[in-house]
Amino acid sequence: MKVITLLTDFGLRDGNVGVMKGVIWGISPDVQIVDLSHNISPQNVVEGAYILGRSAPYFPKGTVHIGVVDPGVGTQRRPIAARLGSQYFVGPDNGLFTVLMDWAINENQPIEVYHTNDPQYWLPTISHVFHGRDIFSPVGAHLSTGIALERLGIKITDPIHLNLPKPQTTELGWRGQLIHIDHFGNIATNIRVEHMANSGPVVVRLCGQEIPGIVRTFGERPPGELIALFGSTGNLIISVVNGDAASRIQAKPGDLVEVIKNN
Amino acid sequence: MKVITLLTDFGLRDGNVGVMKGVIWGISPDVQIVDLSHNISPQNVVEGAYILGRSAPYFPKGTVHIGVVDPGVGTQRRPIAARLGSQYFVGPDNGLFTVLMDWAINENQPIEVYHTNDPQYWLPTISHVFHGRDIFSPVGAHLSTGIALERLGIKITDPIHLNLPKPQTTELGWRGQLIHIDHFGNIATNIRVEHMANSGPVVVRLCGQEIPGIVRTFGERPPGELIALFGSTGNLIISVVNGDAASRIQAKPGDLVEVIKNN
Amino acid sequence: MKVITLLTDFGLRDGNVGVMKGVIWGISPDVQIVDLSHNISPQNVVEGAYILGRSAPYFPKGTVHIGVVDPGVGTQRRPIAARLGSQYFVGPDNGLFTVLMDWAINENQPIEVYHTNDPQYWLPTISHVFHGRDIFSPVGAHLSTGIALERLGIKITDPIHLNLPKPQTTELGWRGQLIHIDHFGNIATNIRVEHMANSGPVVVRLCGQEIPGIVRTFGERPPGELIALFGSTGNLIISVVNGDAASRIQAKPGDLVEVIKNN
Repeated sequence: MKVITLLTDFGLRDGNVGVMKGVIWGISPDVQIVDLSHNISPQNVVEGAYILGRSAPYFPKGTVHIGVVDPGVGTQRRPIAARLGSQYFVGPDNGLFTVLMDWAINENQPIEVYHTNDPQYWLPTISHVFHGRDIFSPVGAHLSTGIALERLGIKITDPIHLNLPKPQTTELGWRGQLIHIDHFGNIATNIRVEHMANSGPVVVRLCGQEIPGIVRTFGERPPGELIALFGSTGNLIISVVNGDAASRIQAKPGDLVEVIKNN
Repeated sequence: MKVITLLTDFGLRDGNVGVMKGVIWGISPDVQIVDLSHNISPQNVVEGAYILGRSAPYFPKGTVHIGVVDPGVGTQRRPIAARLGSQYFVGPDNGLFTVLMDWAINENQPIEVYHTNDPQYWLPTISHVFHGRDIFSPVGAHLSTGIALERLGIKITDPIHLNLPKPQTTELGWRGQLIHIDHFGNIATNIRVEHMANSGPVVVRLCGQEIPGIVRTFGERPPGELIALFGSTGNLIISVVNGDAASRIQAKPGDLVEVIKNN
Repeated sequence: MKVITLLTDFGLRDGNVGVMKGVIWGISPDVQIVDLSHNISPQNVVEGAYILGRSAPYFPKGTVHIGVVDPGVGTQRRPIAARLGSQYFVGPDNGLFTVLMDWAINENQPIEVYHTNDPQYWLPTISHVFHGRDIFSPVGAHLSTGIALERLGIKITDPIHLNLPKPQTTELGWRGQLIHIDHFGNIATNIRVEHMANSGPVVVRLCGQEIPGIVRTFGERPPGELIALFGSTGNLIISVVNGDAASRIQAKPGDLVEVIKNN
């Protein structure tokens, strides 16, 4: 049994995700398919990269992650496939696997990237607007059946790598950015637990608000209170207990966050 | 082949549901996974209990239902697993399986509940905010592979059981509450077909409206008409034919409904 | 391994789609299930027919497509099952498989339609409001296990076939209709690439806008520009590059589109 994940900005209304699964199961009948997300904001490669990167480590070895946030579909942008340690990525060469690749680099995993330009692993007819169906699904499906990466195209060394904002150390503490608002309105920042090791007491400032201290879990504060805590993959998160922090404080991705040492 | 169902308030945008499936298939590669709902209103344990309870009876024997509507994550609330007749529940001990348990009690099924406190069946690292990934998914996956319930922790006899409102018999008929608004705007009440056995002709009153009689199906009345009928699991439902009853009459869960005998 | 697809207007919130899968896997444990769409507009049989028809050709031989957009549930409308070439359809006899049937006719595929009135292939208890669970899911599941179509009921020759609008040739070019707005706001028309073979240069008019020429892919024009191009299944599409065309020009299904030869 192998697993393929799908991450797109297609939404779930128009049948396009279903069609990708039809193509995949036509080639690789026994693979399990997971919807990672189909509600990436349209054309938002950075958002897709973030969700793909934090999710992939929880999948079994050999999982193939197909990502299709692809504003350049039909242009010269290359279709690529990559091995990142024991996991695979298939999608457009536009930086969508940047966070996944950074994870593999951090873990000292082997990395190989191919321009998947051999049409024998594509559908017979290729549209100019839906390579998720015509190229990425069949390539990912063939990978899941055990076809070697090398057979899909030619090795490249220059895949696009996004220059994502990194948090900075300041005189007072750390300065970062808001990078994701989730379904609940929780706000993820790019400041991580390892940045703040041994920080002692802190104050968190964002969007004109000041939050004293970092709690361990939601239940430590009463419903409605604005809190800061570390999320399940280690990022500093701003939440409202049983509420929607992003709406409350009008936060959006890109806004500044500061952590100030308080001693 | 075994089946695991997932019911959460996580939404489908952020990858968290996909990550749970990655964890499950890493442990139990051949299990089929069903999304029961991921759009339970945030922290609404009662809504989750209602949907889980009415859905579970349609699943094969041995199905494991993982429910994660979990405002108390990371606090002292216990993770539990239960056998309810031939089905299993895994989730937080906060009443989320109340309706499922009531169903098992009504059916005279054996019931066993365990505090799943043995960390060898969890992920190696446990966050304070995402036990759906770290505890409930691996515990459910192990159950689906045939690990006995008793090995997961210690037996308990005091799981939390919600005190859900029950309809009452009145001099004129029955009085109940609205308990769920569905995707179409159909309004489910807690008055059930068995309560009203041999009632004869009735009138239904709610939200300032009066509906004469109960029809058998939508097609008996013209589009746009407000009707009362019994839903597919036996609850009295208020609908607008080809329309949205909840918006039309401004109904919300908790509102009163009365059924008046008309003879 | 066999595949079943599901297309409904049920939404994903209430557990009804999950329950259909529970019923299917109770009968046909090894089948793979694909969600084609559960966000068909309520009772919109035409929209469902369009999405089902353009998606089905991408599925493996033997796939069973269960469609439930069913305002006539519980009335005299017949439950049907059909073989259309190498694919199957199960659902209400209300025209939902019109486009799929047209595709099979165009491909000169054999077509057989049955009124699936043998209750031994249904659930034991049939509600008046949820035949997706009680009839269509079990019938589709039995088909996927290899039960012959003929055993499910009696052959019919008069299934309902929708009279969908067809584009017309005019003195200046072609006149058609908008038939679907997708998740991105792309607008699909019923004018197809084969209608316009050898058309030479054209201008596209709709909703008070005029678009000069047809491009091959999104990347040929700058973000924000209104463009016309052929979609992935051959329909003429109106889009805004990295934007939402339907909102921009206030388009809705049924609006007129004209293609004018420009030479």
